[in-house]
Amino acid sequence: MRTRLKELVQSLGGHLIGDADTQVSGIAPLSDATTSQITFLSNPKFRSQAAQTQAAAIILSAADDAVLGADYRGARIVADNPYAYFAKAAQFFAARNAIPVIPGIHPSATLDPTAQVASSAHIGPNVVIGAGAVIDEEVRIEAGCVIGRNVKIGANSCLNANVTIYASCEIGARAIIHSGVVMGADGFGFANAGGTWIKIPQTGRVLIGDDVEIGANTTIDRGALADTVIEDGVKLDNQIQIAHNCHIGTQTAIAACASIAGSARIGKYCSIGGAAMIHGHITIVDHVHVSAGTLALRSISEPGQYTGFYPIAKHGDWEKSATLVRNLNTMREKIRTLEKSVKQLTEKDNE
Amino acid sequence: MRTRLKELVQSLGGHLIGDADTQVSGIAPLSDATTSQITFLSNPKFRSQAAQTQAAAIILSAADDAVLGADYRGARIVADNPYAYFAKAAQFFAARNAIPVIPGIHPSATLDPTAQVASSAHIGPNVVIGAGAVIDEEVRIEAGCVIGRNVKIGANSCLNANVTIYASCEIGARAIIHSGVVMGADGFGFANAGGTWIKIPQTGRVLIGDDVEIGANTTIDRGALADTVIEDGVKLDNQIQIAHNCHIGTQTAIAACASIAGSARIGKYCSIGGAAMIHGHITIVDHVHVSAGTLALRSISEPGQYTGFYPIAKHGDWEKSATLVRNLNTMREKIRTLEKSVKQLTEKDNE
Amino acid sequence: MRTRLKELVQSLGGHLIGDADTQVSGIAPLSDATTSQITFLSNPKFRSQAAQTQAAAIILSAADDAVLGADYRGARIVADNPYAYFAKAAQFFAARNAIPVIPGIHPSATLDPTAQVASSAHIGPNVVIGAGAVIDEEVRIEAGCVIGRNVKIGANSCLNANVTIYASCEIGARAIIHSGVVMGADGFGFANAGGTWIKIPQTGRVLIGDDVEIGANTTIDRGALADTVIEDGVKLDNQIQIAHNCHIGTQTAIAACASIAGSARIGKYCSIGGAAMIHGHITIVDHVHVSAGTLALRSISEPGQYTGFYPIAKHGDWEKSATLVRNLNTMREKIRTLEKSVKQLTEKDNE
Repeated sequence: MRTRLKELVQSLGGHLIGDADTQVSGIAPLSDATTSQITFLSNPKFRSQAAQTQAAAIILSAADDAVLGADYRGARIVADNPYAYFAKAAQFFAARNAIPVIPGIHPSATLDPTAQVASSAHIGPNVVIGAGAVIDEEVRIEAGCVIGRNVKIGANSCLNANVTIYASCEIGARAIIHSGVVMGADGFGFANAGGTWIKIPQTGRVLIGDDVEIGANTTIDRGALADTVIEDGVKLDNQIQIAHNCHIGTQTAIAACASIAGSARIGKYCSIGGAAMIHGHITIVDHVHVSAGTLALRSISEPGQYTGFYPIAKHGDWEKSATLVRNLNTMREKIRTLEKSVKQLTEKDNE
Repeated sequence: MRTRLKELVQSLGGHLIGDADTQVSGIAPLSDATTSQITFLSNPKFRSQAAQTQAAAIILSAADDAVLGADYRGARIVADNPYAYFAKAAQFFAARNAIPVIPGIHPSATLDPTAQVASSAHIGPNVVIGAGAVIDEEVRIEAGCVIGRNVKIGANSCLNANVTIYASCEIGARAIIHSGVVMGADGFGFANAGGTWIKIPQTGRVLIGDDVEIGANTTIDRGALADTVIEDGVKLDNQIQIAHNCHIGTQTAIAACASIAGSARIGKYCSIGGAAMIHGHITIVDHVHVSAGTLALRSISEPGQYTGFYPIAKHGDWEKSATLVRNLNTMREKIRTLEKSVKQLTEKDNE
Repeated sequence: MRTRLKELVQSLGGHLIGDADTQVSGIAPLSDATTSQITFLSNPKFRSQAAQTQAAAIILSAADDAVLGADYRGARIVADNPYAYFAKAAQFFAARNAIPVIPGIHPSATLDPTAQVASSAHIGPNVVIGAGAVIDEEVRIEAGCVIGRNVKIGANSCLNANVTIYASCEIGARAIIHSGVVMGADGFGFANAGGTWIKIPQTGRVLIGDDVEIGANTTIDRGALADTVIEDGVKLDNQIQIAHNCHIGTQTAIAACASIAGSARIGKYCSIGGAAMIHGHITIVDHVHVSAGTLALRSISEPGQYTGFYPIAKHGDWEKSATLVRNLNTMREKIRTLEKSVKQLTEKDNE
């Protein structure tokens, strides 16, 4: 399905220069775009690539347009934030190509008679919904999902296939939950009595705000006594572990395989890199960026980027440096001895 | 449902001081407890907080009671291990609030005719149970679980929704298995022939003892020729990977996202921190504690705590230190050169 | 079911010395093999163990046979690559003991009328297959799998229970996909506009070659605009994360819990160790081996083994070395100061 540029701009804004009737069928990167596609330039370092793109139109900043515009044969859409404009344009095309969701409950689904499901919701094959659950308007629950008792799911949220939500968890509006997510399993809480572990019942919930996306196979545990809280707009990648009683602030993004230990509190507008680990019971303020593979052991009270992983090297070089790291104490002692000797020599010398 | 303190003490022990008819409805932390709840003090550093709690009663040690008891207006339960007592009390209240499990097999479940399921067991919607499987008394298998042929599940065990157990695995009594767990998938075993991988069939089983808890999305692979063994009382958090032929000793606890490589042998009463990695074919003795984010490359033959992760820093500081770590060899050479020079100077000086 | 050695050799090759009518029932390691089993010696360091094995026959190299053959009372199979021969022999026995797969579609499965399923395929209970999907000959799809629309699965592939494949992904022939795998979920792609994340629709696919094995709970995201590609013969262990637009070359093996960030390109015949992390947008050439727990931050252009993780130590020792790592800059400054002083002293001394 083709779209005229003027329709795009009417819908998304931006300043269009060129033929408003140019038709485009979709969006593609600078190097791949065909003459029926629109492309985007979000980083000035790709200007020379932009000059050669085949695309029918380009989204770019005013600064880039000042340089490229005169020579560009296609249409241009000048936008404040070309990358965000690209995202919205991609959403625009995706919505046009989307397969409509048919409301209704698949006959193979098992719903408790006390569950409330909006008539506009789509409930796929083999879905199981427990007593007292509330499923809001236009929610989509795909095949094999199991929704525990008293769970609430907000309007327009989408649960992909094989998601499991334990009892009493609450999810806001417009959530996207990917397959294999487990929300509300017991937190890891035990008391030790003479070597034997005694389970501490986990009676809190998981509370998810609006506009949250949760990647495949991510797990979010229910709180022990209080709740685990994920605020509005948080984006979680795949295979992340959020332990009991964590609190993640609005618009924070966490990359794949990160693990957040119990009762950690992460601020708003943070980013946590892939496979990073956040220790339990620590607090990280707003606007902190933890790099991939980094373990945050203590609270972070100042915005900025924080890093800590061992630099990669050829195996033989690593072996040498790792041995020296273990013996840094010896090195320091040698330096101290040298300092003493040099001091003595210098004093003698000055006598 | 309210409970008189005397009922609690009759059930759990401990020395009750104060009004035995005091009624409590549940348990809460020091700061949150209301006048109808019981609380606990497990760490002397919170004594001042304990002095101000609103709780109707407090669980505490004799030592803490000696300090706080005189001034405390509520009832006190003096226990040897207040934290373990709290866990048991929480279990006591959770049991009272638990929704009774109804025995029986949901009509949508698919059971092989040769599977043996105890009449007191609960089999949820869409559960699939293979030939020859044996499901013991009061086992609970929630929706969407798939139980392979010849699997054995011991009495009172609970499998939450969407758990997958491959053929021939055995689980003891009172297990708690969380959603998304995969037990008995093939271990990662291949022989290389001229660059091409040839699969080694994985014909061992997974054997799980009694009282084991396994967190959401954790995977435990079957053995290659022999079995993978998890002893009694082991507690595994979420997203842990246990490779083929591992052996985990009794009461060992492993935190989320840890990975244990093939044929590793971990002793009893150990703890493995979150995202820690245990190398293959190594042996760790009893009572070893591996810190979060630490890679154990070699066997550990002495109890104690072991750690190894790069300290976090502001990104710029990390870059500097990481560069120096790579060049530690140069630093050592400079120290050696200095030592030589200083030695010569000192000798000359003493001539 | 017993097998005569001559049948094994007829099927797998190798040079048989000894009684070709010797019957064996299976394969076992040197130390465990009984007199009715065959064993193998793949590493000369176990020669003394081989000399004492009870096995009816042994697979070994010509070099090992030259040393051990004269004294060995059982039959010997001399093979170029004894470990690969063992793998094939284990497959031979496994095939004999395998439970035959019965073609057909379980009545509880939900298939879109436009899905094409070969008559020799096995579709288990509660499987859901979307519109336009194509399931080739002798494919096995176990209980609870959800196959999205337009998915293609090649001949003889096996999906274990509870696998989820999103729309339009393609899997080659002879794949083995373990339970909990999620393939084709959205990549983690967002544009930031004034602090708020805007989703970038993920419209690429996942393309899997022939002879690929994917471990339990591994996730492979669909591409953003282009596709995520896994070439023939790649072996992925459990709980691996492959982000959008990655490209993994043929016969590369990746161990459990590794995470490969977006648009990373890994060559052929590589190995990535457990819990290793590969940064986004980097390129790793063929025949590179990244050690466990190592973060590869930059492209690697030369074959070889690369490592980078902090060495484990007793916690107290680690604390000291970690502090010194943070202060390496100070140490370097002290060395510089010393060098200056020693230079001055040496110059004075030479005056």
